[in-house]
This record gives sequence, C-alpha cells and structure tokens, in this order.
Amino acid sequence: MSRELSVVVLAAGMGTRMKSEIPKVMHKIAGKPMVNHVIDTATHLNAIKTLVVVGPDMPKLIEAVSPHPTFEQTDRLGTAHAVLAAKEALRGLTGNVLVLYADSPLFTAETLLRLVAAREHGDHAVAVLGFRPEDPSGYGRLVTDPANGELLAIVEDKECDDTQRAINFCNSGVMCFTAESMIEILEAIGNANAKGEYYLTDAVEVARANGNSCVAVEVAEEETLGVNSRSQLAVAEAIMQSRLREAAMVNGATLIDPGSVYLASDTRLGRDVVIEPNVFFGPGVTVGDEVTIKAFSHLESCVVGDKADIGPYARLRPGAEIGAGARVGNFVEIKKAVVEDGAKVNHLSYIGDARVGAKANIGAGTITCNYDGYRKQHTDIGAGAFIGSNSALVAPVSIGDGAIIGAGSTITGTVEADALVIERAQRLDKPGWARVFREKMKALLGK
Amino acid sequence: MSRELSVVVLAAGMGTRMKSEIPKVMHKIAGKPMVNHVIDTATHLNAIKTLVVVGPDMPKLIEAVSPHPTFEQTDRLGTAHAVLAAKEALRGLTGNVLVLYADSPLFTAETLLRLVAAREHGDHAVAVLGFRPEDPSGYGRLVTDPANGELLAIVEDKECDDTQRAINFCNSGVMCFTAESMIEILEAIGNANAKGEYYLTDAVEVARANGNSCVAVEVAEEETLGVNSRSQLAVAEAIMQSRLREAAMVNGATLIDPGSVYLASDTRLGRDVVIEPNVFFGPGVTVGDEVTIKAFSHLESCVVGDKADIGPYARLRPGAEIGAGARVGNFVEIKKAVVEDGAKVNHLSYIGDARVGAKANIGAGTITCNYDGYRKQHTDIGAGAFIGSNSALVAPVSIGDGAIIGAGSTITGTVEADALVIERAQRLDKPGWARVFREKMKALLGK
Amino acid sequence: MSRELSVVVLAAGMGTRMKSEIPKVMHKIAGKPMVNHVIDTATHLNAIKTLVVVGPDMPKLIEAVSPHPTFEQTDRLGTAHAVLAAKEALRGLTGNVLVLYADSPLFTAETLLRLVAAREHGDHAVAVLGFRPEDPSGYGRLVTDPANGELLAIVEDKECDDTQRAINFCNSGVMCFTAESMIEILEAIGNANAKGEYYLTDAVEVARANGNSCVAVEVAEEETLGVNSRSQLAVAEAIMQSRLREAAMVNGATLIDPGSVYLASDTRLGRDVVIEPNVFFGPGVTVGDEVTIKAFSHLESCVVGDKADIGPYARLRPGAEIGAGARVGNFVEIKKAVVEDGAKVNHLSYIGDARVGAKANIGAGTITCNYDGYRKQHTDIGAGAFIGSNSALVAPVSIGDGAIIGAGSTITGTVEADALVIERAQRLDKPGWARVFREKMKALLGK
Repeated sequence: MSRELSVVVLAAGMGTRMKSEIPKVMHKIAGKPMVNHVIDTATHLNAIKTLVVVGPDMPKLIEAVSPHPTFEQTDRLGTAHAVLAAKEALRGLTGNVLVLYADSPLFTAETLLRLVAAREHGDHAVAVLGFRPEDPSGYGRLVTDPANGELLAIVEDKECDDTQRAINFCNSGVMCFTAESMIEILEAIGNANAKGEYYLTDAVEVARANGNSCVAVEVAEEETLGVNSRSQLAVAEAIMQSRLREAAMVNGATLIDPGSVYLASDTRLGRDVVIEPNVFFGPGVTVGDEVTIKAFSHLESCVVGDKADIGPYARLRPGAEIGAGARVGNFVEIKKAVVEDGAKVNHLSYIGDARVGAKANIGAGTITCNYDGYRKQHTDIGAGAFIGSNSALVAPVSIGDGAIIGAGSTITGTVEADALVIERAQRLDKPGWARVFREKMKALLGK
Repeated sequence: MSRELSVVVLAAGMGTRMKSEIPKVMHKIAGKPMVNHVIDTATHLNAIKTLVVVGPDMPKLIEAVSPHPTFEQTDRLGTAHAVLAAKEALRGLTGNVLVLYADSPLFTAETLLRLVAAREHGDHAVAVLGFRPEDPSGYGRLVTDPANGELLAIVEDKECDDTQRAINFCNSGVMCFTAESMIEILEAIGNANAKGEYYLTDAVEVARANGNSCVAVEVAEEETLGVNSRSQLAVAEAIMQSRLREAAMVNGATLIDPGSVYLASDTRLGRDVVIEPNVFFGPGVTVGDEVTIKAFSHLESCVVGDKADIGPYARLRPGAEIGAGARVGNFVEIKKAVVEDGAKVNHLSYIGDARVGAKANIGAGTITCNYDGYRKQHTDIGAGAFIGSNSALVAPVSIGDGAIIGAGSTITGTVEADALVIERAQRLDKPGWARVFREKMKALLGK
Repeated sequence: MSRELSVVVLAAGMGTRMKSEIPKVMHKIAGKPMVNHVIDTATHLNAIKTLVVVGPDMPKLIEAVSPHPTFEQTDRLGTAHAVLAAKEALRGLTGNVLVLYADSPLFTAETLLRLVAAREHGDHAVAVLGFRPEDPSGYGRLVTDPANGELLAIVEDKECDDTQRAINFCNSGVMCFTAESMIEILEAIGNANAKGEYYLTDAVEVARANGNSCVAVEVAEEETLGVNSRSQLAVAEAIMQSRLREAAMVNGATLIDPGSVYLASDTRLGRDVVIEPNVFFGPGVTVGDEVTIKAFSHLESCVVGDKADIGPYARLRPGAEIGAGARVGNFVEIKKAVVEDGAKVNHLSYIGDARVGAKANIGAGTITCNYDGYRKQHTDIGAGAFIGSNSALVAPVSIGDGAIIGAGSTITGTVEADALVIERAQRLDKPGWARVFREKMKALLGK
C-alpha cells in the first residue's frame, strides 16, 4: 500500500433478528464489541481517518467508537446512502477509502491490505472482495473478464442469467475506492430497484460507465461472515476464538482442550504456559512464562507473573497482580490487589483492595473486609506474614512483616511486625450435652 | 389433524448395552427421562390417551409416567406384541393411534402431526415415518408406489432383492394407525420369522392384504435416533441441546459459546440475557430480561429477576428466588431463599432457608446456619441490612431492617432494626512472638 | 505373536515448534507424558526390553522413563542413526524389535500386534505400518507387490515417479524388525541424500537387497499422528480423550456431555456413574458405582466410594478418600483426608490432613487449620460429630464421636465424645448505631 488509507465503517443497523435493546454492532466477540473489532482492524491498517456511520439514537455506540467521528444515517436507504452520510468528511480525503461493515468483524488486516494493493496496482476506481461459497445462490455474483481479471459487474442473484447464476464468485460487500472519484461514483448510484434503495454494489457499474476499471480480490468465505442473529454471533465468536487459540499455541502455550478456553482479543500468554480445560479470559489479561492455570479459572484485567500457579477455581478480577511464583488456589477471589512474589492464597478467600507481601501465607477462609457499605478501604499484609484460617481483616488495617494472626480472628487495628495476635473467646465445654440433645431431638421428631 | 389422537409409548426395553440398573428409558436427556420427553410430545399433540407399555419390575418407570396408564409386556415377543399389551385400552379408542418409542426421544410434534395428517388425508390404515440415511444397509426399506406414493411394503434388509436393497428410504418404526382397524391388523401379524417375534412392520402387509392402503412420510434422519447405549444417549443429548440452544438464541439470549451451555428442556431465558461459557441449567429455571450469567454457574429450579447479575461460580439451588437487579457472586450458594431486589451476596457465602431483604449487603464468608443436624430453620435479614464478613447467622434468627452485623460475629438472637451488633473477643497481642516461633521452628526442622 | 518382543522408543527430538523449555515428548496427553504413553503401550505388549533413545541433556526425560534404559543420540543424524544409539543393547536381543516414536502416542497395542504378527507370518525382515491419507503428498509411499502383497520399497515423495505419486499408501514410520538381522540392516543404511542423514525408511531397500522380504500393514490414519506443535498436541489429546470417553460409556457411565469431561489415562469409573458436564479428572482417580459427579468438579489421585455424591464445584485433591454414600458439595476442597461412609461436607469447606468420621456433618465454612507455616498436622473428627458452620479446627486436634461444635468456634484442644463445645464472645448491641452511621456516611460522602 503506497498511498494513504481511510476507512468508512457502516454501523447503522439495529439488527432486529437479534431481539435486543442494544445496537447490533455493540454485541461482543472475544470480549469486545463487533464495531471495535472493525475499528481496531482499521487502526492496524494505519488508517488516517476512520469514519463511523451510525443510526439514530445510538449514544452508546458513539461512545464506544470515540474519538472516531460518527455520522448519523437518519433514513435507511441502502449502503451507498449510508456511506454518503459521511460525505463531508470524505470530501477532504486522498488515497484509498475502504468501506467496512461493523457487523462483519472477521476480515483480517492482511486481506484488506491485499484488496487495497490490488486497487492501487491496476489504478482501479473500485476493488471488491469476493468469496466462493459452496452454494452461491442468494449472493450477488462478481462477473470478471477472463482476459485481464477485471471486475465487469456485480449482478444480484435475482437478475442473473443462467451463465451468471453458475458463477460462484460472490460479493462480500467490502470495497476499496480511490478517494478522488468516490463521491462522484456514489452520487451517481440510483435507486431504481424493488426497494428503492441506493446500493453500493452499483458502484462498479457506475465506475465502468465513467470509463474506469474495477477489480475483484478473493477472500476465504470464513472472513465474510456477517452477523444478523445471535446464532451468527456465536459462529463469529467461535471463528475468532479459533484464531486466538491457534495463535496462543503457536506462541508456546499448551491449551489442553483449546475449544474450552475462552480468550479475549488482547489476552497475552507467555511461553510454557499450561492451561487446563475450561478457563475464561476476559479483556486485559497478561500471563507470564511457565504459569499453570488450572481448570475453571476466570481472569479479567489482571497480570500474572512468571511461574505463578493459578486455580483451579481461581477468580482474578480487575486489578489483580499476581507476583512471580505466587499461588492463588481454589475458591479464591482476588480484586484490585497485589499478591507479591511467592505469596500463597490457597483456599476459600477474598482478597480485595489489598497488598499481600512477598511469601506471606494467607490461610483458608481469610476475608479482607474492604467495604463498610460506603467506602472501599485498604488492607496491607506484610512480607512473610501468616494469616491464620478463617480470619477477617477489617480495613483499613495493616499487618506487619512476619506477623502471625491466630485462626478465627477478626482484626481491626494495626498488627506490629513479628507479633502474634489472636482474638479468641473462652471456650465453653458442656460434657454429654450433645448426647442429650440428640435424644431430645429424636423424641421430638419421632426419629 | 381433524380426528382425535391417542398414543402408545413402547417403553419395555431394559437396554442391556447401557450396563445400568435403571430401565433404559429412564436415562435422562436435558434433565428429563427419555420416556417423559416422548410423553410430553404426546401431550403437546393433545393426545387424549397416552398408553405406556412397560417391562416387568419397573416401578420407577410407572411412577415417572404417572398418571398415564401402564401395561406390562411380560414376555418380549416383538413390537406388535408390545402394543397389544395395551389391547384392552386400545379397544375403546377412535381416530388416530400413534406408536412411539420411549428410547427415541427426538421426534418433534411437527413431524408427528405431518404423519397423522398424511394418514387422514388418504384415509390410510397405516402411515409410517421413513428416513433416508446415507447408508441404508441394516434398515428395513420402505417400498412405495411411484404412481401414487402409497407404501407397498416394508422389507427387512436381509430379505431385500437387489432393487429393494438400492432403496434408501428406511423405516423409522414410528407408525400411525386408525383406531378402528388397528387391533385387527395387529392380531393378524404372525411370528413366522427367525426370532419367532411379532413385528409391527408387518402391519403394512396385513393392512394391504385386507384391502387397505398405507402411506410413508419422510422425516429427517436426526429425529429417528434410537438410544441403545450411553454413547447414543450422549448423541441424543447433544442434538436436544442444539435445539434448545438455537431456540434460546432465536428468542434473544446471547450464548457466547452455545456448545458449553447446558439447558434443561424447560429452561426459560429472557431477552438480552448474556450467558458466558460453561453454565449449567438443571430443570425448572426461569431467567428474566437483561440478566448476565457469568461462567461456571449452576442453576436448578430457581427464578432470576430482570437485570440480576449472577456468577461466576454462582450456585442457585432449588427454591432460590433472585430479585431484580440483585447480585449473586462467586462461590455463593443460594438454596430455598429469597434474595430481594437489589440485594448483594457477592462472595463465598451460603444462604439457605432465608430471606435477604431488598438492598441488603451480605459480606464475604457469611453463612446461614440453617441446620442443627435435625431441623432446617429460617433466617430473616431485613431490607438494607449489612452483614459483616465471616459472620455466622444461627437460625432461627432475625436481623432487622438496616441493622449492621460486625465482621466475624456469630449471631444467635434477634437483632433490632438499625442496631449495630458485634460479637468480638478481646484481642491478645504477643509482640515478637512470631519471630521466636520461626526461629524455634527452623531449629526444630533444620531449615 | 509367538516370539518375544523388544521395543526401541525414539525420544531424542526437542521439538522447536513447541517453543518450550521441556523436551517435546515430556508434554502430556491425558495427564501423562507422551513418552510414557508409548512406553506403557510397550509394557502392554509384554515387551521384554524397552530401550529409549534420548537427546543430550534431558535428565527429566531419563527420569520419566526409568527404569527403562536410555541411550543418548549425541548428533541428530536421522532415525536409523538414532536406533543405532542403542546398538549394544540391541545386540543381545532375539525375536521382534519394534521401533516406535515417543511423539506418536496414539498407536494402539492391537495395531502393533498386527504388525508383529504380519512380520512373523511371512518371516519378513521388516514390517512397516502404512496409512492411507486423503492427500498423500509429502509422505513416503509404500510400493507393494500386487501379486503377494510384499512391500517392495518406500519412496520419498520427492523421488516419486507419476505412478508412485498416485499411491496413497504411506509410511507411518513404525517398523518391526527381526532382531537377528536388524543391526546388519541398519548399519548398511547410507546417508547419500540431501541432508546427509541415515533414514530408517531405507531399511526396506537394504533388506530386499540382502534377499529378504518385507511387508506393510495398514493402520487407521488417526493412530499415526505425530506431535510437532502444540496444536497437534491438542489434536492428539482430543483423540485420546475420545477413546477414553467412549470406553467409559461402554463400561456403563453416563457422560452427559462427553466432550466436556477430561479423563486421565488411568481414570476408573464404576457402573451407573453419572457425570455432569465440565468435570476434570487428573491422574489416579477411582470412582465406585452409582456415584454422581456434578458439574465443575476437579478430581486428582483420589478414591470415591459407591453412591457418593460429589459436587458441583467439588475439588478432590490427592489423598482424598470419600466413603460410600458420603457427600462432598460445592466449593469444598478435600486433601489427604478420609471422609468416611455417609459423612457430609456440603459447603465452602477445606478439609486437609484429616479424618471425618462416618455420618459426621461438617457445617458450611469449616476449615481444618492443618498448617502452621512449617508443619502439616492432623485433624480427627469422630463418627456422628456435628461441626457448626464457620468453625476453624486448629490441628493437631481431635473431636470425639458425636460431639457438637458450636457455629463460629475456633477449636484448639481435644473435644470429648458427645460434648458440646462453643467458643463465643459476649455480644455487644448498640441500638440505633447503624442509622447514625448511615447518616454520617451520607453527609461525609454527599450521597
């Protein structure tokens, strides 16, 4: 690609088949709205401008694509009409203009670069991505010139003659224009069709009538999937997950059952990471080398250091930072907390708004009481401290380095370094009471 | 379907390949025994009578199909013999009689209606459901008249001549009779075959010999699956799950990874429900609109209100009622308890036999002690109450509206509204003790 | 197989495409390193010697295959060269010598027995396992004599003429030699090829030049999978899991969603075991009859008795022994502990280094405090004891038969049989305090 590139993203559709209050393109794949996948692809292509065409009353969509400018398509009069909603912004552009669809999140940057390169190579007015489905019926056919490969026309399925109907090279909808002639072409597109809409597909006919050439570039069918229903959303998710899993494995992570590991588009996994089945990664997770993540773990917006050992049933919530060689075990939730190198939180604990010092040992059933109904407050646990099981640490609270907290304590004030602190009431023994109780109960319940 | 319909369900087989102590048809699909799937399909068809033929010594099966009458087939002498076990009940019927198989739970009501309609349409004595497998070998072939589509014969695989062997239209076993001639036909079926059994397939030959016509109706092969082994049970489960998942998505729920969400046949999901991977629904779950259910959640016989937020790792057991906007978080078990609107039970808690008032906040590690070894007793938590972490509430107990329980308390009596209650022993500090302990231990263990 | 059998396992490859610090063949499938799968297959074949050829600096591999002798291939000069690394050990052998690959863990004992039998049957010098891929390009072709089925040559893909290229019978690499002529054949193999390596495939040419015959035996392509990347590791894992799941179902266990149950190669499941979706078995698990294992359970090196009820979210760690009819419920971790018949640990507990007596009831939130930072110590809970919720039992500690521990207690000493023991501080009530606190907070936070 030698000339600069801009991108128009069509995102105005509501998607009634989704049966949703949310605009269709805000539905997520790999933890990210579809529209943001497309915008991120544009960014990856170094697009100098990304213009987003939205429908009426979509404030959350406008926010999601910010700071990219949005243009409202008030009436739904077809794809050419949609692109022209951004006409004023298009006017100043030079170079290539790609038209992408926010509900088609699977086109890769590599594919789009090939499309742009093909347009530039032949100095074509329009380049169109086409695919070859097993059954082309229903799709617009790309009629090409066998002599020079030029794209001669896009013919809608209904209007195909028998020769055209036999063509299995079909229109994906994605097009690359040259900025200089784009507006002129789009404005020349008419709406003399059954629905009275302005179709982008007519751009080829207009361009050629103007004496310009067009070209078609082939793409794998998988990339062309458009999402119109939740079933298709699930299919797109599955394709995206396959890509992410394969990339993770190529980079040196073992996914014992890849199909049961859910990755976000930004998950980063180190080398010799081993992931057991059924692990879920939300957005924003970075995992170091030689980490094992056991089954049924759930991670979001967190960092895991080298050689740490996570799970099973570990939940790392946003802001969890797990140090090198640290261990977070079963039924443990870590939120907005640093677990320093070599520390252990092995069982049934909630650590929130806290620091757990290096090599500290947090006993089973430990709870940081970080919330009083109004404020979140901080718990600081020193290096090498030992928190006995079933303890509650009422924040704000500070446990010194090397201190020991006796099991079952509720700690409210500061604990000095190297101190032992126990909160324990006197024990009351009632010998034989249990036997009497059982006898009474049996009598009472007739057991 | 213009005339009334009765159904005979053949459920006598033990299924030795299952290697089970349980009758084959009691094995479950989508949380419900196979036989009940078939019976529910009959109900869906408005069958006026559903007669179930069982084998000897199957009391649990008889109970499972209650109140439908059962008829014991004492000897296993073939499918026609099995149907005749219900002869007395058949005698009084009019209209259509469908013969279904309790180990073939995938036939849809729509398919069966087509079968009945075809029988009625031509006033045929027998209508048979046929399917077209890729490889027909082993199946009985349906020989039809190309002129009028009538079913001429069902020919067993072994008895096919070359022309018949080439037919790929095969007998599924499901048949619709006209009640008036059914018993006569069945009683005319002989057992002059290798096994000496009475086969329902011979009904076609008998009917035609009597001067009646028969017809065959095609069904997708998938619906015809019969379950004879646990592998086939798993296949049937997978097909049923696909149907349930697709229906859930069509109705407006997002299943991020549909294949990892297990639905029961009666699961109801609202609109804009989002379900993360690996969620399990047992029978009897209703979920409102805009609910998010995070990964690794397990729900049975419970109700979840609109905009509630569930999981990950939430377990809702029978009798859990989660209010609108309420939140049940990780490692939380709710059993026979109402969590009212806007209440939060976010971490590591067991709430059983209880009410959690609106907007109450249940701290991490809270346990309702509902069981004393003999009786389950009730815990009542008022609206807006705040239960400090690691508290035990010993039922029967009542916490007033707006009350606060200090962390680590064990509460046995009533707590007044707006009161603070703390149960806390005196804290004992031993400065430097931990350091001395470590030194002793290192000496002792030679570390 | 009438003569004795030895096996050479080639395990020297590092597998750079794995991007791993671990030797390739140490990566695991079904919980066991690939090399050990191959060695266990050899053991299953009653191999009298299993010789393992390793690469330089692979101490962990040598340890993993112990006590089988290892032979270091210092330079990587091809498969024939690798086998000859074990030359001294081969010299004393008689009978059959199989050459297997540690990165090809899917060949079954049945297949290898067929290979050996075919070699013996025709008294061939070499027998080769071949497979028929859909697309043979890239593989060495097995040229056979249509008259007598003898293997005439193995021709590398690049050296095929058009006739040979059309052959789809390909070399899997696995060979069986007769010990008496094996060394002579291998030493006659030259390295006059592009890479200057000594290829085992040349054994056929050498053998025939010596006047001996060879034979090829067909194997399903699936068994021939060699693992060179983590993606292929995942494929091999999936195939192995399919085999294990199918075997479990054939033996009478119900796997509701087989594809979501992960089995180890040594998992043993009883009859009428029901396994919900998403259950993970590490190595060393034995499960009795009529056990239900609910979703999201994780079991390793443990024993579960008949009619026990496990999960959901139960974690059984090494050394857990669950008695008949016992119950381990949600968010419960059992480690190195015996839970005797009929005992219940239903919710949110950690039981480690302990005995839970028959029919004892462990309340929600119970923790055995087995670790003081230095030593693991034992907790003994008597038969029929009732441990109140949220209790901490500080080991070493002993609770007598039938004793009751009050909720919220931290128990350090011995509790006599049938006694009630409570540790509870005095309760402090501050009427109205919560209301004042809320008002202050609202003022403070401006809410």
